[in-house]
Amino acid sequence: MATTKKNAFYAQSGGVTAVINASACGVIQTARAHKGKIGKVYAGRNGIIGALTEDLIDTSKESAAAIEALRSTPSGAFGSCRYKLKSLEANKREYERLIEVFRAHDIGYFFYNGGGDSADTCFKVSQLSQAMGYPIQAIHVPKTVDNDLPITDCCPGFGSVAKYVAVSTLEASFDVRSMKETSTKVFVVEVMGRHAGWIAAAGGLVEEHGIPVVILFPEIEFDREKFLARVDALVKQHGYCTVVVSEGCHNADGSFLAEQGTRDAFGHAQLGGAAPVVAGMVKEALGYKFHWAVADYLQRAARHIASKTDVKQAYELGKKAVELAIKGENAVMPTIDRLSDAPYRYRIGVAPLAKVANVEKFMPRDFITRDGFGITEKCRRYLAPLIQGEDYPKYRNGLPVYVTLKNVAVPKKLPAFALK
Amino acid sequence: MATTKKNAFYAQSGGVTAVINASACGVIQTARAHKGKIGKVYAGRNGIIGALTEDLIDTSKESAAAIEALRSTPSGAFGSCRYKLKSLEANKREYERLIEVFRAHDIGYFFYNGGGDSADTCFKVSQLSQAMGYPIQAIHVPKTVDNDLPITDCCPGFGSVAKYVAVSTLEASFDVRSMKETSTKVFVVEVMGRHAGWIAAAGGLVEEHGIPVVILFPEIEFDREKFLARVDALVKQHGYCTVVVSEGCHNADGSFLAEQGTRDAFGHAQLGGAAPVVAGMVKEALGYKFHWAVADYLQRAARHIASKTDVKQAYELGKKAVELAIKGENAVMPTIDRLSDAPYRYRIGVAPLAKVANVEKFMPRDFITRDGFGITEKCRRYLAPLIQGEDYPKYRNGLPVYVTLKNVAVPKKLPAFALK
Repeated sequence: MATTKKNAFYAQSGGVTAVINASACGVIQTARAHKGKIGKVYAGRNGIIGALTEDLIDTSKESAAAIEALRSTPSGAFGSCRYKLKSLEANKREYERLIEVFRAHDIGYFFYNGGGDSADTCFKVSQLSQAMGYPIQAIHVPKTVDNDLPITDCCPGFGSVAKYVAVSTLEASFDVRSMKETSTKVFVVEVMGRHAGWIAAAGGLVEEHGIPVVILFPEIEFDREKFLARVDALVKQHGYCTVVVSEGCHNADGSFLAEQGTRDAFGHAQLGGAAPVVAGMVKEALGYKFHWAVADYLQRAARHIASKTDVKQAYELGKKAVELAIKGENAVMPTIDRLSDAPYRYRIGVAPLAKVANVEKFMPRDFITRDGFGITEKCRRYLAPLIQGEDYPKYRNGLPVYVTLKNVAVPKKLPAFALK
Repeated sequence: MATTKKNAFYAQSGGVTAVINASACGVIQTARAHKGKIGKVYAGRNGIIGALTEDLIDTSKESAAAIEALRSTPSGAFGSCRYKLKSLEANKREYERLIEVFRAHDIGYFFYNGGGDSADTCFKVSQLSQAMGYPIQAIHVPKTVDNDLPITDCCPGFGSVAKYVAVSTLEASFDVRSMKETSTKVFVVEVMGRHAGWIAAAGGLVEEHGIPVVILFPEIEFDREKFLARVDALVKQHGYCTVVVSEGCHNADGSFLAEQGTRDAFGHAQLGGAAPVVAGMVKEALGYKFHWAVADYLQRAARHIASKTDVKQAYELGKKAVELAIKGENAVMPTIDRLSDAPYRYRIGVAPLAKVANVEKFMPRDFITRDGFGITEKCRRYLAPLIQGEDYPKYRNGLPVYVTLKNVAVPKKLPAFALK
């Protein structure tokens, strides 16, 4: 732990969520409450790129009201990025630049708010800090709609997407049920989740409301004939059915149902378009009239229907990250440790980043029904508390009041640095 | 007006909405409040098909609480259908059957809740009723997310979709703004609207929040080069932009940007897929990274973010329909007559069905900016009041509490009738 009062650096990484700003709010408000221990909080403009290019935002220029408004504003208020630092060996230059920028701005705390890739970056920064003899306490604040981080019971961002998907699936299914006699019989909605089916699983929560649902998980190889048989059986029984397909759903050969052919900076395939593929399959093989939707960013940005539990946890983890830093912790990530399902109880725990980085948590097989198309009671018990409660933003003139910060730049002290 | 107490028939027609059940609630509660004038309210199971097949639902079997719950339940609680009755000459058999069923069940009031096609059917029923000497008062209750009925200032269902589209566009645009440095620069969201761009126009409301938006209306022929130039200019200026494309957007030759090749019972092309077409165009010509969403049924079913104004008007128009019937009116439709924009004031008026049937109301040209890609101040003044206020459903275990009625069938009295 730094003995003199150091500044803090905070950055948002990867795809943003409805509640990542609630974590930012937790970090900044908690740092402000400990002014004797932590100086200013500088945020990276556009995530880690802001650290590399020394493009820092002085969050002390924002009013208390603006910081409080982050709690109910979706997206990344300081900008985020998809920019993966390579291994220390392959790109020592960038890690050294980070340390150089931190040193120039007297930064002793590195709060990195992201998913698996950023947990890895965060871990490397703490390692290099030791190697370079400049002390940095690196704390990772978990965030990912994919809910695929290990150790923590869930990840901020997920509960709100899960709620959006469950609510939207319920509403659209009611719609289809109304129209089934002469119109749409199969409705397909595509949701996010490259490798893990957590988001798709949330669609299964509507079964308790009598809705026939087929879920296509990335964890289960797509079997066209079994899928069509299942849809046909449900339509024959109920007159309609809803299909929730994960963007990461793939064939036995590993190819995605729909791949657009482009890749992001992390090398991940840019997905989208599984819904029309699945819908076309149903039409062609079974002749049922269909409709399809692709929720895409609408789902992860949907702060208007955020889960109260999720917003609360996002804030608490940001707060805890700062408290851990003050206690002298390094290379750790605060976690949600579930104590019981119903009533839902949890405590905030701590995990070493060495055990978090680059580990993906998939849906356990016993969360998925034997036929691979639904969720089990065990999964339902897991999901149920995470979508509990509503946390509505304020509205003005019919639209939510979301804050746009001033984002005032900290004067630069170093020569420019070219991103490669 | 019938001199003895007659029963009423109510049916939902065409695509359902987030608030059509609020109109049903208004009809049924008002009829129940006038038991001296109106007997039972029978609902058509699956819309007008229920009348033709004598599949009537006895709404008197539903509790007051269940009927009240309709106010906050999306979809069509009795089932709806896409089934257009042909002209009287071409299909007199069906109209005569309707009168026969009404006579058998002592029905003197016909409340038909739908869009332009059902206004036409409603008008024909009133004409045939006179010709056949069996008195039926036919009242049309307006409903269409497309907002394309004439005379009435707006149509129930539209305000809620408009709110959904404006809120979702705002949220997703905040998301893209966060990610623009290294990821998505152009986000495309496809919304409903076959011929009229009212829904797409709602996306323009986010411009007041600083979001750069390009709207593609069905009223404006798509011009690829102009569109790409506009997107490019906005991305160069803001770093990103959002495109709201109407499903009905079409090329100069009349072909839709994306037509799936299937047609519904009204002969309308089944649309969907303009967003990926537009996104692909941007990628190919400008090279910008994109994401796209197709909201489809999610938008019209989104009761969770319904406009309070819309819910209120949907209820009031259902109520007014019954009051008009009691006053002896026939072949009319209650309307929203706007008195002022700000403060928003309106009164419920009445329009003769002869002037409503088969007239589509498009966006006035002066609601669209000269370049064809945005909305004018005049349009903003029109739209603003329609999305005002939130009317949240109750939640239980994280999901909205939506009612599913018992829908008890009325015993049949007539021989079966085959639909052709």
